[in-house]
Amino acid sequence: MVFDPQSLAFDARGLIPAIAQDATSGEVLMMAWMNAEAVARTLGTGRVTYWSRSRQAFWIKGESSGHVQHLVEMRVDCDRDCLLLLVDQTGPACHTNRRSCFYTAVRDGEDIEIMAPVA
Amino acid sequence: MVFDPQSLAFDARGLIPAIAQDATSGEVLMMAWMNAEAVARTLGTGRVTYWSRSRQAFWIKGESSGHVQHLVEMRVDCDRDCLLLLVDQTGPACHTNRRSCFYTAVRDGEDIEIMAPVA
Repeated sequence: MVFDPQSLAFDARGLIPAIAQDATSGEVLMMAWMNAEAVARTLGTGRVTYWSRSRQAFWIKGESSGHVQHLVEMRVDCDRDCLLLLVDQTGPACHTNRRSCFYTAVRDGEDIEIMAPVA
Repeated sequence: MVFDPQSLAFDARGLIPAIAQDATSGEVLMMAWMNAEAVARTLGTGRVTYWSRSRQAFWIKGESSGHVQHLVEMRVDCDRDCLLLLVDQTGPACHTNRRSCFYTAVRDGEDIEIMAPVA
């Protein structure tokens, strides 16, 4: 079946969450949002492109930082309301310069930082 | 710092997306939603508990199917608006009986099913 971005279940804002996972290590790097056009651009260019809710603009990941995400494969979940992006990540994915945005663990009821910024 | 579910950035509905990842294989299994109480119950019981948007009720994963998720670790992202749950998954995570909900890949512009239901 031909994939059509419009076949996805977008929320009331026209957005769908997209989880970026390192295609090699399996590490979950970040979660951000896409609209239908961002999905189409990501597939068309191979450069992961989100929709920035704060800036209300397309956000080509790494455009300013150089920490680009190349799409290896896009996957869709059973309800078609969430995307999983297998990516080849250049440099850290997080704006804090950490490899992943999920650098805080909850252990014994405490917030614990488990990942340092890349030097 | 003591972890407080209220410190998370919930959306206008009071919900936060939670990504479940197999703690052993690294496979991303599903994405669902939690409210503050679901976060607290998950941490308190070790049984992953979501908030069902369709049923408007707590959803203890696996309560009816037996396909429970035991929490290994909860992680929080840099914006505190997304959770990553490392889980010990019993049986398939998806209601279609597949290991993961992300069983459809977009390859060469087509939807391709890459994972069969568990026998």
